[in-house]
Amino acid sequence: MRVVCASANPVKVREIEDLLVGVVELLPRPAHVPDVVEDADTLLGNARLKARALVAATGLPAVADDTGLEVDALGGAPGVRTARFAGDDASYADNRRHLLDALREVPGAARTARFRTVVVLASPDGHEIVAEGECRGTIAESERGDRGFGYDAVFVPGDGDGRTFAEMTIADKHAMSHRGRAFRHLADLLAAAR
Amino acid sequence: MRVVCASANPVKVREIEDLLVGVVELLPRPAHVPDVVEDADTLLGNARLKARALVAATGLPAVADDTGLEVDALGGAPGVRTARFAGDDASYADNRRHLLDALREVPGAARTARFRTVVVLASPDGHEIVAEGECRGTIAESERGDRGFGYDAVFVPGDGDGRTFAEMTIADKHAMSHRGRAFRHLADLLAAAR
Repeated sequence: MRVVCASANPVKVREIEDLLVGVVELLPRPAHVPDVVEDADTLLGNARLKARALVAATGLPAVADDTGLEVDALGGAPGVRTARFAGDDASYADNRRHLLDALREVPGAARTARFRTVVVLASPDGHEIVAEGECRGTIAESERGDRGFGYDAVFVPGDGDGRTFAEMTIADKHAMSHRGRAFRHLADLLAAAR
Repeated sequence: MRVVCASANPVKVREIEDLLVGVVELLPRPAHVPDVVEDADTLLGNARLKARALVAATGLPAVADDTGLEVDALGGAPGVRTARFAGDDASYADNRRHLLDALREVPGAARTARFRTVVVLASPDGHEIVAEGECRGTIAESERGDRGFGYDAVFVPGDGDGRTFAEMTIADKHAMSHRGRAFRHLADLLAAAR
């Protein structure tokens, strides 16, 4: 099955390609498709908005995901506002700095957090497949590592060896990451539906 | 559309009937259908297990939801273990007591929490519709109110007036609850798919 990928972030697209290899053929998002306003109140709602906009623009099946970082000491923030935590036009460097600032007084044991990814594969006939993945961990005291993207340099997964996601190879990260789990669930659902 | 409801809890079934009135005709779960083991690692996974088991047993579309309570001071627990927080055979009275005990030393402002419901409507042809709803709030210092079920007597929604869910009428609770939001999203998706 040929599926258009909603992400315009090449690192994210590469990750998704790795995770869905052999299950779908991923097509890049056409340059003429505008961004959608991600104003739903849940990750599922935002992933659906992105996937459906792309189906409408291309007439092909499309896959989109939305990821939230939920920090316990911040009452679950930034959550659905993860990509714009430091403001609507903030970069991820701004967002990471904003997060470390917000947690400056919070000791190590209380820096627990969780990444959650929801992925929607939408079809032109209106059907869709939804999958979800979580990864628990803690927020590091400072940035470490230069791989990945987003909050990877400040997130230490609980199933790992103390490295941040940005200090891991993509394969190590995929094995335990929220996005890895969500896309593996999606691949399982696709395989079962054949 | 006639849809079998996975819940065996009559209060929950009544709530879902109220929320989907005019959209689907809800059928009670047949007595001969056994419980499924809810061992998925996400709310979506558990809701899907319940909905698909019921489709397999009845040959009809089925709706199932799974709800998690995520308490920030407990690192997001009980989460996917919400129904068995005090043990595998615990009652909800046990679970509420266990929660209040765990938060005994936690002051009011740090008692933030969130309910999240994921609902899956699965069809015999393998298609499904997924919806999600959240409700942020705080955990009360003690139980208040005798309506509802589950953790309603200890959860104070942030959009309300300080009452717990168990002190509200069903209509007031539905207006802001995680389950109300999830099933309204489902009703919107069903209406849009017609």
